[in-house]
Amino acid sequence: MEKVTVIKIGGNIIDNAAELEQFLTDFSKIEGNKVLVHGGGKSATKMAESIGLVPNMIEGRRVTDAPMLDVVVMIYAGQINKTIVAELQFKDNNAIGFSGADGNLIQSTKRNHPTIDYGFVGDVKAVNTNLLQTLLSHKIVPVFCAITHDKNGQLLNTNADTIASELAIALSEVYEVTLNYCFEKQGVLSDSEDDDSVIPQINSKLYAQLKAEKVIHSGMIPKLDNCFNSLSKGVQQIKIGHHQMLKNDQIVHTLITL
Amino acid sequence: MEKVTVIKIGGNIIDNAAELEQFLTDFSKIEGNKVLVHGGGKSATKMAESIGLVPNMIEGRRVTDAPMLDVVVMIYAGQINKTIVAELQFKDNNAIGFSGADGNLIQSTKRNHPTIDYGFVGDVKAVNTNLLQTLLSHKIVPVFCAITHDKNGQLLNTNADTIASELAIALSEVYEVTLNYCFEKQGVLSDSEDDDSVIPQINSKLYAQLKAEKVIHSGMIPKLDNCFNSLSKGVQQIKIGHHQMLKNDQIVHTLITL
Repeated sequence: MEKVTVIKIGGNIIDNAAELEQFLTDFSKIEGNKVLVHGGGKSATKMAESIGLVPNMIEGRRVTDAPMLDVVVMIYAGQINKTIVAELQFKDNNAIGFSGADGNLIQSTKRNHPTIDYGFVGDVKAVNTNLLQTLLSHKIVPVFCAITHDKNGQLLNTNADTIASELAIALSEVYEVTLNYCFEKQGVLSDSEDDDSVIPQINSKLYAQLKAEKVIHSGMIPKLDNCFNSLSKGVQQIKIGHHQMLKNDQIVHTLITL
Repeated sequence: MEKVTVIKIGGNIIDNAAELEQFLTDFSKIEGNKVLVHGGGKSATKMAESIGLVPNMIEGRRVTDAPMLDVVVMIYAGQINKTIVAELQFKDNNAIGFSGADGNLIQSTKRNHPTIDYGFVGDVKAVNTNLLQTLLSHKIVPVFCAITHDKNGQLLNTNADTIASELAIALSEVYEVTLNYCFEKQGVLSDSEDDDSVIPQINSKLYAQLKAEKVIHSGMIPKLDNCFNSLSKGVQQIKIGHHQMLKNDQIVHTLITL
Protein backbone atom coordinates (compact mmCIF):
# COMPACT_ATOMS: atom_id res chain seq x y z
CA MET A 1 0.00 0.00 0.00
CA GLU A 2 1.35 3.42 -0.96
CA LYS A 3 1.83 6.00 1.80
CA VAL A 4 0.51 9.53 2.24
CA THR A 5 1.52 12.08 4.86
CA VAL A 6 -1.23 14.57 5.77
CA ILE A 7 0.01 17.61 7.67
CA LYS A 8 -2.08 20.31 9.27
CA ILE A 9 -0.42 23.54 10.35
CA GLY A 10 -2.02 25.91 12.80
CA GLY A 11 -2.46 29.65 12.77
CA ASN A 12 0.68 30.33 14.81
CA ILE A 13 2.86 29.03 11.97
CA ILE A 14 0.88 31.06 9.42
CA ASP A 15 1.23 34.26 11.48
CA ASN A 16 5.02 34.05 11.77
CA ALA A 17 6.77 34.53 8.42
CA ALA A 18 10.10 33.04 9.57
CA GLU A 19 8.38 30.04 11.14
CA LEU A 20 6.29 29.46 8.01
CA GLU A 21 9.39 29.65 5.81
CA GLN A 22 11.17 27.10 8.02
CA PHE A 23 8.14 24.83 8.02
CA LEU A 24 7.78 25.01 4.22
CA THR A 25 11.47 24.21 3.77
CA ASP A 26 11.08 21.11 5.96
CA PHE A 27 7.75 20.18 4.35
CA SER A 28 9.20 20.48 0.84
CA LYS A 29 11.81 17.84 1.73
CA ILE A 30 9.28 15.20 2.80
CA GLU A 31 9.43 12.36 0.28
CA GLY A 32 6.43 10.75 -1.35
CA ASN A 33 2.74 11.65 -1.37
CA LYS A 34 1.81 14.50 0.93
CA VAL A 35 -1.10 16.82 1.59
CA LEU A 36 -0.96 20.13 3.45
CA VAL A 37 -3.92 21.67 5.30
CA HIS A 38 -3.57 25.17 6.70
CA GLY A 39 -5.55 27.08 9.25
CA GLY A 40 -6.18 30.79 9.13
CA GLY A 41 -4.16 32.63 11.70
CA LYS A 42 -4.95 36.14 12.77
CA SER A 43 -5.03 37.86 9.39
CA ALA A 44 -8.75 37.18 8.79
CA THR A 45 -9.60 38.82 12.13
CA LYS A 46 -7.28 41.73 11.34
CA MET A 47 -8.84 42.19 7.90
CA ALA A 48 -12.36 41.95 9.34
CA GLU A 49 -11.49 44.66 11.87
CA SER A 50 -9.86 46.90 9.28
CA ILE A 51 -13.00 46.92 7.14
CA GLY A 52 -15.15 47.57 10.20
CA LEU A 53 -16.76 44.15 10.75
CA VAL A 54 -17.75 43.48 14.34
CA PRO A 55 -17.04 39.90 15.45
CA ASN A 56 -20.33 38.08 15.94
CA MET A 57 -19.92 35.65 18.82
CA ILE A 58 -22.65 33.38 20.21
CA GLU A 59 -21.85 31.41 23.37
CA GLY A 60 -18.16 32.10 22.85
CA ARG A 61 -18.09 30.79 19.30
CA ARG A 62 -17.49 32.86 16.22
CA VAL A 63 -20.39 33.12 13.80
CA THR A 64 -19.55 33.30 10.10
CA ASP A 65 -22.05 35.75 8.64
CA ALA A 66 -21.94 36.68 4.93
CA PRO A 67 -19.39 39.54 5.24
CA MET A 68 -17.15 37.38 7.47
CA LEU A 69 -17.38 34.51 4.97
CA ASP A 70 -16.16 36.90 2.25
CA VAL A 71 -13.19 37.78 4.45
CA VAL A 72 -12.19 34.20 5.27
CA VAL A 73 -12.52 33.14 1.63
CA MET A 74 -10.27 36.06 0.61
CA ILE A 75 -7.67 35.43 3.27
CA TYR A 76 -7.65 31.62 3.49
CA ALA A 77 -8.24 30.66 -0.18
CA GLY A 78 -6.58 33.79 -1.57
CA GLN A 79 -3.72 35.33 0.34
CA ILE A 80 -2.53 32.51 2.61
CA ASN A 81 -3.13 29.64 0.20
CA LYS A 82 -1.45 31.26 -2.80
CA THR A 83 1.51 32.53 -0.72
CA ILE A 84 2.14 28.95 0.45
CA VAL A 85 1.72 27.52 -3.06
CA ALA A 86 4.14 30.05 -4.62
CA GLU A 87 6.72 29.29 -1.91
CA LEU A 88 6.39 25.51 -2.39
CA GLN A 89 6.75 25.95 -6.16
CA PHE A 90 9.97 27.86 -5.49
CA LYS A 91 11.08 24.86 -3.39
CA ASP A 92 10.31 22.56 -6.35
CA ASN A 93 7.18 20.97 -4.89
CA ASN A 94 4.44 20.93 -7.51
CA ALA A 95 1.81 22.40 -5.17
CA ILE A 96 -1.76 23.25 -6.14
CA GLY A 97 -3.95 25.18 -3.72
CA PHE A 98 -7.52 24.03 -3.18
CA SER A 99 -10.68 24.96 -1.41
CA GLY A 100 -13.18 22.14 -1.04
CA ALA A 101 -15.16 23.64 -3.94
CA ASP A 102 -12.28 23.07 -6.36
CA GLY A 103 -12.82 19.74 -8.09
CA ASN A 104 -15.63 19.16 -5.55
CA LEU A 105 -12.79 17.87 -3.38
CA ILE A 106 -14.58 18.48 -0.07
CA GLN A 107 -18.33 18.77 0.04
CA SER A 108 -19.92 19.85 3.30
CA THR A 109 -23.31 20.61 4.80
CA LYS A 110 -24.21 23.94 6.38
CA ARG A 111 -24.28 23.33 10.12
CA ASN A 112 -27.80 22.98 11.43
CA HIS A 113 -27.70 23.52 15.18
CA PRO A 114 -30.98 23.39 17.15
CA THR A 115 -30.36 26.66 19.01
CA ILE A 116 -27.31 28.43 17.53
CA ASP A 117 -27.04 29.76 13.98
CA TYR A 118 -23.33 29.49 13.21
CA GLY A 119 -23.88 31.10 9.82
CA PHE A 120 -21.88 29.87 6.85
CA VAL A 121 -20.09 27.04 8.62
CA GLY A 122 -19.81 23.61 7.03
CA ASP A 123 -19.46 20.09 8.38
CA VAL A 124 -17.64 17.77 6.00
CA LYS A 125 -19.88 15.31 4.15
CA ALA A 126 -17.75 13.80 1.39
CA VAL A 127 -14.21 13.83 0.01
CA ASN A 128 -13.50 13.28 -3.71
CA THR A 129 -10.88 10.60 -3.11
CA ASN A 130 -10.68 9.65 -6.80
CA LEU A 131 -9.54 13.11 -7.86
CA LEU A 132 -7.11 13.33 -4.93
CA GLN A 133 -5.62 10.00 -6.01
CA THR A 134 -5.28 11.25 -9.59
CA LEU A 135 -3.54 14.40 -8.39
CA LEU A 136 -1.15 12.51 -6.10
CA SER A 137 -0.35 10.05 -8.90
CA HIS A 138 0.79 13.07 -10.96
CA LYS A 139 3.12 14.17 -8.12
CA ILE A 140 0.90 17.13 -7.25
CA VAL A 141 1.13 18.40 -3.66
CA PRO A 142 -2.41 19.46 -2.65
CA VAL A 143 -2.58 22.46 -0.29
CA PHE A 144 -6.00 22.85 1.32
CA CYS A 145 -7.43 25.91 3.00
CA ALA A 146 -10.30 25.69 5.47
CA ILE A 147 -13.06 26.54 2.98
CA THR A 148 -15.50 23.97 1.59
CA HIS A 149 -18.78 24.16 -0.34
CA ASP A 150 -22.23 22.57 -0.27
CA LYS A 151 -22.34 21.77 -4.04
CA ASN A 152 -25.28 24.20 -4.29
CA GLY A 153 -23.04 27.19 -4.91
CA GLN A 154 -22.44 28.11 -1.28
CA LEU A 155 -18.92 28.35 0.13
CA LEU A 156 -18.64 27.36 3.81
CA ASN A 157 -16.08 28.08 6.52
CA THR A 158 -14.85 24.73 7.87
CA ASN A 159 -12.57 23.74 10.73
CA ALA A 160 -9.06 23.00 9.41
CA ASP A 161 -8.42 20.20 11.96
CA THR A 162 -11.57 18.46 10.75
CA ILE A 163 -10.58 18.91 7.11
CA ALA A 164 -7.20 17.28 7.82
CA SER A 165 -8.91 14.44 9.65
CA GLU A 166 -11.56 13.85 6.96
CA LEU A 167 -8.94 13.94 4.18
CA ALA A 168 -6.82 11.42 6.15
CA ILE A 169 -9.84 9.13 6.66
CA ALA A 170 -10.82 9.28 2.97
CA LEU A 171 -7.26 8.66 1.80
CA SER A 172 -6.88 5.71 4.20
CA GLU A 173 -9.18 3.72 1.90
CA VAL A 174 -6.39 3.61 -0.67
CA TYR A 175 -3.21 4.62 1.15
CA GLU A 176 -1.43 4.05 4.44
CA VAL A 177 -1.97 7.47 6.05
CA THR A 178 0.04 9.33 8.68
CA LEU A 179 -1.68 12.44 10.03
CA ASN A 180 0.38 15.17 11.71
CA TYR A 181 -1.08 18.09 13.61
CA CYS A 182 1.62 20.75 13.90
CA PHE A 183 1.25 23.68 16.26
CA GLU A 184 3.34 25.91 18.53
CA LYS A 185 3.74 23.36 21.35
CA GLN A 186 5.70 20.12 21.32
CA GLY A 187 2.62 18.00 21.95
CA VAL A 188 -0.33 17.56 24.27
CA LEU A 189 0.70 18.94 27.65
CA SER A 190 -0.29 17.53 31.04
CA ASP A 191 0.25 21.03 32.45
CA SER A 192 -0.62 23.83 30.02
CA GLU A 193 1.77 26.14 31.91
CA ASP A 194 4.72 23.78 31.43
CA ASP A 195 5.97 23.27 27.87
CA ASP A 196 8.08 20.34 29.05
CA SER A 197 5.07 18.35 30.23
CA VAL A 198 4.43 16.66 26.87
CA ILE A 199 2.47 13.41 27.16
CA PRO A 200 4.41 11.04 24.86
CA GLN A 201 1.49 8.76 23.99
CA ILE A 202 -2.28 8.90 24.47
CA ASN A 203 -4.63 6.00 23.80
CA SER A 204 -8.40 6.13 24.14
CA LYS A 205 -8.32 4.78 27.69
CA LEU A 206 -5.80 7.39 28.87
CA TYR A 207 -7.74 10.07 26.96
CA ALA A 208 -10.95 9.26 28.87
CA GLN A 209 -9.02 9.41 32.14
CA LEU A 210 -7.26 12.72 31.30
CA LYS A 211 -10.56 14.28 30.29
CA ALA A 212 -12.22 13.15 33.53
CA GLU A 213 -9.31 14.63 35.51
CA LYS A 214 -9.63 17.87 33.45
CA VAL A 215 -5.95 17.54 32.48
CA ILE A 216 -7.13 17.74 28.89
CA HIS A 217 -9.71 20.46 28.31
CA SER A 218 -11.03 23.23 26.02
CA GLY A 219 -9.55 23.38 22.51
CA MET A 220 -7.61 20.15 22.85
CA ILE A 221 -10.82 18.09 23.20
CA PRO A 222 -12.21 18.58 19.66
CA LYS A 223 -8.64 18.08 18.31
CA LEU A 224 -8.27 14.74 20.12
CA ASP A 225 -11.84 13.71 19.27
CA ASN A 226 -10.87 14.23 15.62
CA CYS A 227 -7.79 12.07 16.17
CA PHE A 228 -9.63 9.10 17.72
CA ASN A 229 -12.35 9.35 15.08
CA SER A 230 -9.66 9.22 12.37
CA LEU A 231 -7.86 6.25 13.93
CA SER A 232 -11.11 4.30 14.32
CA LYS A 233 -11.83 4.93 10.63
CA GLY A 234 -8.53 3.63 9.29
CA VAL A 235 -5.85 6.31 9.65
CA GLN A 236 -2.61 4.50 10.50
CA GLN A 237 -0.77 6.93 12.75
CA ILE A 238 -1.38 10.36 14.29
CA LYS A 239 1.14 12.72 15.83
CA ILE A 240 0.61 16.08 17.53
CA GLY A 241 3.54 18.40 18.09
CA HIS A 242 5.88 21.08 16.80
CA HIS A 243 6.68 20.83 13.08
CA GLN A 244 10.29 19.96 13.96
CA MET A 245 8.98 16.41 14.54
CA LEU A 246 8.51 16.11 10.75
CA LYS A 247 12.28 16.32 10.26
CA ASN A 248 13.33 14.18 13.18
CA ASP A 249 11.25 11.43 14.74
CA GLN A 250 13.31 11.71 17.96
CA ILE A 251 11.88 15.17 18.69
CA VAL A 252 9.38 15.02 21.58
CA HIS A 253 5.76 14.82 20.41
CA THR A 254 2.49 13.13 21.33
CA LEU A 255 1.60 9.91 19.54
CA ILE A 256 -2.11 9.13 19.45
CA THR A 257 -3.13 5.45 19.38
CA LEU A 258 -6.44 3.65 19.70
CA MET B 1 -7.35 17.30 -33.21
CA GLU B 2 -9.40 17.79 -30.05
CA LYS B 3 -10.93 21.21 -29.45
CA VAL B 4 -10.69 23.64 -26.54
CA THR B 5 -12.72 26.79 -25.97
CA VAL B 6 -10.90 29.49 -23.99
CA ILE B 7 -13.17 32.21 -22.64
CA LYS B 8 -12.13 35.41 -20.93
CA ILE B 9 -14.74 37.45 -19.07
CA GLY B 10 -14.20 41.06 -18.17
CA GLY B 11 -14.77 42.98 -14.96
CA ASN B 12 -18.25 44.18 -15.96
CA ILE B 13 -19.57 40.62 -15.85
CA ILE B 14 -17.85 40.01 -12.50
CA ASP B 15 -19.32 43.18 -10.99
CA ASN B 16 -22.93 42.31 -11.87
CA ALA B 17 -24.22 39.27 -9.94
CA ALA B 18 -27.17 38.63 -12.29
CA GLU B 19 -24.96 38.94 -15.38
CA LEU B 20 -22.34 36.61 -13.88
CA GLU B 21 -25.02 34.05 -13.00
CA GLN B 22 -26.38 34.17 -16.57
CA PHE B 23 -22.89 33.86 -18.03
CA LEU B 24 -22.02 30.89 -15.80
CA THR B 25 -25.27 29.15 -16.78
CA ASP B 26 -24.39 29.56 -20.46
CA PHE B 27 -20.74 28.65 -19.88
CA SER B 28 -21.68 25.49 -17.98
CA LYS B 29 -23.59 24.24 -21.04
CA ILE B 30 -20.63 24.52 -23.42
CA GLU B 31 -19.65 21.01 -24.47
CA GLY B 32 -16.12 19.67 -24.49
CA ASN B 33 -12.85 21.06 -23.18
CA LYS B 34 -13.06 24.61 -21.91
CA VAL B 35 -11.00 27.07 -19.89
CA LEU B 36 -12.29 30.20 -18.15
CA VAL B 37 -10.15 33.27 -17.42
CA HIS B 38 -11.61 36.04 -15.31
CA GLY B 39 -10.59 39.63 -14.76
CA GLY B 40 -11.00 41.50 -11.54
CA GLY B 41 -13.77 44.02 -11.67
CA LYS B 42 -14.13 46.82 -9.19
CA SER B 43 -14.00 44.85 -5.95
CA ALA B 44 -10.19 45.01 -5.63
CA THR B 45 -10.32 48.81 -5.93
CA LYS B 46 -13.18 48.95 -3.41
CA MET B 47 -11.31 46.72 -0.98
CA ALA B 48 -8.10 48.74 -1.41
CA GLU B 49 -10.03 51.94 -0.63
CA SER B 50 -11.80 50.43 2.37
CA ILE B 51 -8.49 49.50 4.00
CA GLY B 52 -7.06 52.92 3.24
CA LEU B 53 -4.72 52.16 0.32
CA VAL B 54 -4.13 55.09 -1.99
CA PRO B 55 -4.03 54.09 -5.68
CA ASN B 56 -0.51 54.48 -6.96
CA MET B 57 -0.67 55.61 -10.58
CA ILE B 58 2.32 56.38 -12.81
CA GLU B 59 1.60 57.85 -16.24
CA GLY B 60 -2.01 56.79 -15.92
CA ARG B 61 -1.18 53.18 -15.15
CA ARG B 62 -1.84 51.45 -11.88
CA VAL B 63 1.22 50.32 -9.95
CA THR B 64 0.91 47.09 -7.94
CA ASP B 65 2.87 47.73 -4.77
CA ALA B 66 3.07 45.07 -2.03
CA PRO B 67 -0.16 46.04 -0.20
CA MET B 68 -2.05 46.25 -3.51
CA LEU B 69 -0.69 42.83 -4.54
CA ASP B 70 -2.10 41.40 -1.29
CA VAL B 71 -5.48 42.87 -2.17
CA VAL B 72 -5.60 41.56 -5.75
CA VAL B 73 -4.47 38.09 -4.62
CA MET B 74 -7.24 38.05 -1.98
CA ILE B 75 -9.94 39.28 -4.32
CA TYR B 76 -8.97 37.60 -7.61
CA ALA B 77 -7.61 34.24 -6.37
CA GLY B 78 -9.82 34.16 -3.27
CA GLN B 79 -13.22 35.73 -3.42
CA ILE B 80 -13.97 35.95 -7.17
CA ASN B 81 -12.27 32.69 -8.17
CA LYS B 82 -13.86 30.54 -5.47
CA THR B 83 -17.30 32.09 -5.97
CA ILE B 84 -17.14 31.17 -9.67
CA VAL B 85 -15.83 27.67 -8.92
CA ALA B 86 -18.58 26.95 -6.35
CA GLU B 87 -21.23 28.15 -8.80
CA LEU B 88 -19.84 26.00 -11.65
CA GLN B 89 -19.74 22.98 -9.33
CA PHE B 90 -23.42 23.61 -8.58
CA LYS B 91 -23.98 23.60 -12.36
CA ASP B 92 -22.20 20.23 -12.58
CA ASN B 93 -19.02 21.51 -14.21
CA ASN B 94 -15.99 20.04 -12.44
CA ALA B 95 -14.24 23.40 -12.07
CA ILE B 96 -10.92 23.95 -10.32
CA GLY B 97 -9.70 27.49 -9.67
CA PHE B 98 -6.09 28.33 -10.38
CA SER B 99 -3.59 31.09 -10.08
CA GLY B 100 -0.51 30.70 -12.26
CA ALA B 101 1.40 29.53 -9.17
CA ASP B 102 -0.82 26.47 -8.78
CA GLY B 103 0.85 23.57 -10.56
CA ASN B 104 3.28 26.13 -11.97
CA LEU B 105 0.60 26.58 -14.63
CA ILE B 106 1.65 30.10 -15.63
CA GLN B 107 5.14 31.33 -14.88
CA SER B 108 5.86 34.99 -15.47
CA THR B 109 8.67 37.52 -15.14
CA LYS B 110 8.41 40.68 -13.07
CA ARG B 111 8.08 43.52 -15.57
CA ASN B 112 11.32 45.39 -16.01
CA HIS B 113 10.54 48.76 -17.58
CA PRO B 114 13.41 51.20 -18.25
CA THR B 115 11.66 54.17 -16.59
CA ILE B 116 8.49 52.99 -14.81
CA ASP B 117 8.41 50.61 -11.85
CA TYR B 118 5.06 48.86 -12.22
CA GLY B 119 5.67 46.94 -9.01
CA PHE B 120 4.54 43.34 -8.74
CA VAL B 121 3.33 42.97 -12.32
CA GLY B 122 4.21 39.89 -14.34
CA ASP B 123 4.62 39.21 -18.05
CA VAL B 124 3.85 35.61 -19.01
CA LYS B 125 6.91 33.49 -19.73
CA ALA B 126 5.70 29.86 -19.82
CA VAL B 127 2.53 27.80 -19.60
CA ASN B 128 2.55 24.25 -18.16
CA THR B 129 0.68 22.75 -21.12
CA ASN B 130 1.30 19.16 -19.96
CA LEU B 131 -0.54 19.66 -16.69
CA LEU B 132 -3.36 21.56 -18.41
CA GLN B 133 -3.74 18.65 -20.84
CA THR B 134 -3.86 16.17 -17.94
CA LEU B 135 -6.54 18.25 -16.20
CA LEU B 136 -8.64 18.60 -19.37
CA SER B 137 -8.34 14.87 -20.03
CA HIS B 138 -9.92 14.32 -16.59
CA LYS B 139 -12.86 16.59 -17.55
CA ILE B 140 -11.66 19.34 -15.22
CA VAL B 141 -12.75 22.89 -16.11
CA PRO B 142 -9.82 25.19 -15.22
CA VAL B 143 -10.81 28.66 -13.98
CA PHE B 144 -7.89 31.09 -14.00
CA CYS B 145 -7.59 34.35 -12.13
CA ALA B 146 -5.18 37.07 -13.21
CA ILE B 147 -2.40 36.16 -10.77
CA THR B 148 0.83 34.39 -11.81
CA HIS B 149 4.19 33.75 -10.13
CA ASP B 150 7.87 33.97 -10.96
CA LYS B 151 8.75 30.47 -9.61
CA ASN B 152 10.94 32.23 -7.01
CA GLY B 153 8.12 32.55 -4.51
CA GLN B 154 6.77 35.87 -5.79
CA LEU B 155 3.12 36.21 -6.87
CA LEU B 156 2.57 38.72 -9.69
CA ASN B 157 -0.46 40.64 -10.93
CA THR B 158 -0.95 39.80 -14.61
CA ASN B 159 -3.29 41.09 -17.30
CA ALA B 160 -6.23 38.71 -17.74
CA ASP B 161 -6.48 39.29 -21.53
CA THR B 162 -2.84 38.28 -21.86
CA ILE B 163 -3.35 35.20 -19.69
CA ALA B 164 -6.24 34.10 -21.92
CA SER B 165 -4.15 34.71 -25.02
CA GLU B 166 -1.06 32.89 -23.66
CA LEU B 167 -3.15 29.91 -22.51
CA ALA B 168 -4.80 29.77 -25.95
CA ILE B 169 -1.40 29.87 -27.69
CA ALA B 170 0.05 27.14 -25.45
CA LEU B 171 -3.01 24.91 -25.88
CA SER B 172 -2.95 25.38 -29.67
CA GLU B 173 0.13 23.12 -29.77
CA VAL B 174 -2.11 20.18 -28.88
CA TYR B 175 -5.70 21.34 -29.49
CA GLU B 176 -7.72 23.32 -32.00
CA VAL B 177 -8.36 26.46 -29.94
CA THR B 178 -11.15 29.02 -30.09
CA LEU B 179 -10.55 32.11 -27.97
CA ASN B 180 -13.49 34.29 -26.88
CA TYR B 181 -13.17 37.69 -25.25
CA CYS B 182 -16.48 38.49 -23.57
CA PHE B 183 -17.25 41.98 -22.35
CA GLU B 184 -20.17 44.39 -22.00
CA LYS B 185 -20.31 45.39 -25.70
CA GLN B 186 -21.32 43.26 -28.68
CA GLY B 187 -17.92 43.56 -30.32
CA VAL B 188 -15.32 46.06 -31.49
CA LEU B 189 -17.19 49.27 -32.32
CA SER B 190 -16.38 51.67 -35.14
CA ASP B 191 -18.03 54.41 -33.04
CA SER B 192 -17.60 53.98 -29.30
CA GLU B 193 -20.77 56.04 -28.74
CA ASP B 194 -22.87 53.69 -30.90
CA ASP B 195 -23.40 50.17 -29.59
CA ASP B 196 -24.80 49.13 -32.97
CA SER B 197 -21.57 49.96 -34.82
CA VAL B 198 -20.01 46.51 -34.33
CA ILE B 199 -17.33 45.69 -36.90
CA PRO B 200 -18.19 42.10 -37.93
CA GLN B 201 -14.68 41.06 -38.94
CA ILE B 202 -11.21 42.55 -38.53
CA ASN B 203 -8.10 41.21 -40.24
CA SER B 204 -4.60 42.55 -39.74
CA LYS B 205 -4.84 44.84 -42.77
CA LEU B 206 -8.11 46.42 -41.60
CA TYR B 207 -6.68 46.64 -38.06
CA ALA B 208 -3.71 48.69 -39.28
CA GLN B 209 -6.07 50.98 -41.17
CA LEU B 210 -8.51 51.42 -38.25
CA LYS B 211 -5.62 52.21 -35.92
CA ALA B 212 -4.23 54.80 -38.34
CA GLU B 213 -7.70 56.38 -38.59
CA LYS B 214 -7.94 56.32 -34.75
CA VAL B 215 -11.21 54.37 -35.06
CA ILE B 216 -9.58 51.80 -32.80
CA HIS B 217 -7.80 53.34 -29.84
CA SER B 218 -6.92 53.14 -26.13
CA GLY B 219 -7.85 49.89 -24.33
CA MET B 220 -8.89 48.09 -27.49
CA ILE B 221 -5.35 48.24 -28.92
CA PRO B 222 -3.62 45.89 -26.42
CA LYS B 223 -6.67 43.58 -26.64
CA LEU B 224 -6.40 43.36 -30.44
CA ASP B 225 -2.60 43.11 -30.33
CA ASN B 226 -3.12 40.07 -28.09
CA CYS B 227 -5.54 38.65 -30.65
CA PHE B 228 -3.25 38.99 -33.65
CA ASN B 229 -0.34 37.64 -31.64
CA SER B 230 -2.45 34.60 -30.70
CA LEU B 231 -3.61 33.99 -34.29
CA SER B 232 -0.07 34.22 -35.62
CA LYS B 233 1.01 31.65 -33.02
CA GLY B 234 -1.58 29.02 -33.86
CA VAL B 235 -4.90 29.92 -32.24
CA GLN B 236 -7.62 28.87 -34.69
CA GLN B 237 -10.36 31.45 -34.14
CA ILE B 238 -10.93 34.55 -32.00
CA LYS B 239 -14.19 36.32 -31.23
CA ILE B 240 -14.82 39.51 -29.27
CA GLY B 241 -18.32 40.32 -28.05
CA HIS B 242 -21.05 39.92 -25.49
CA HIS B 243 -21.20 36.51 -23.83
CA GLN B 244 -24.53 35.85 -25.56
CA MET B 245 -22.42 34.96 -28.62
CA LEU B 246 -21.35 31.78 -26.79
CA LYS B 247 -24.92 30.46 -26.91
CA ASN B 248 -25.79 31.56 -30.39
CA ASP B 249 -23.33 32.07 -33.22
CA GLN B 250 -25.82 34.34 -35.00
CA ILE B 251 -25.49 37.02 -32.29
CA VAL B 252 -23.52 40.01 -33.60
CA HIS B 253 -19.83 39.91 -32.62
CA THR B 254 -16.39 40.71 -34.02
CA LEU B 255 -14.43 37.89 -35.62
CA ILE B 256 -10.67 38.44 -35.68
CA THR B 257 -8.73 36.87 -38.55
CA LEU B 258 -5.14 37.14 -39.72
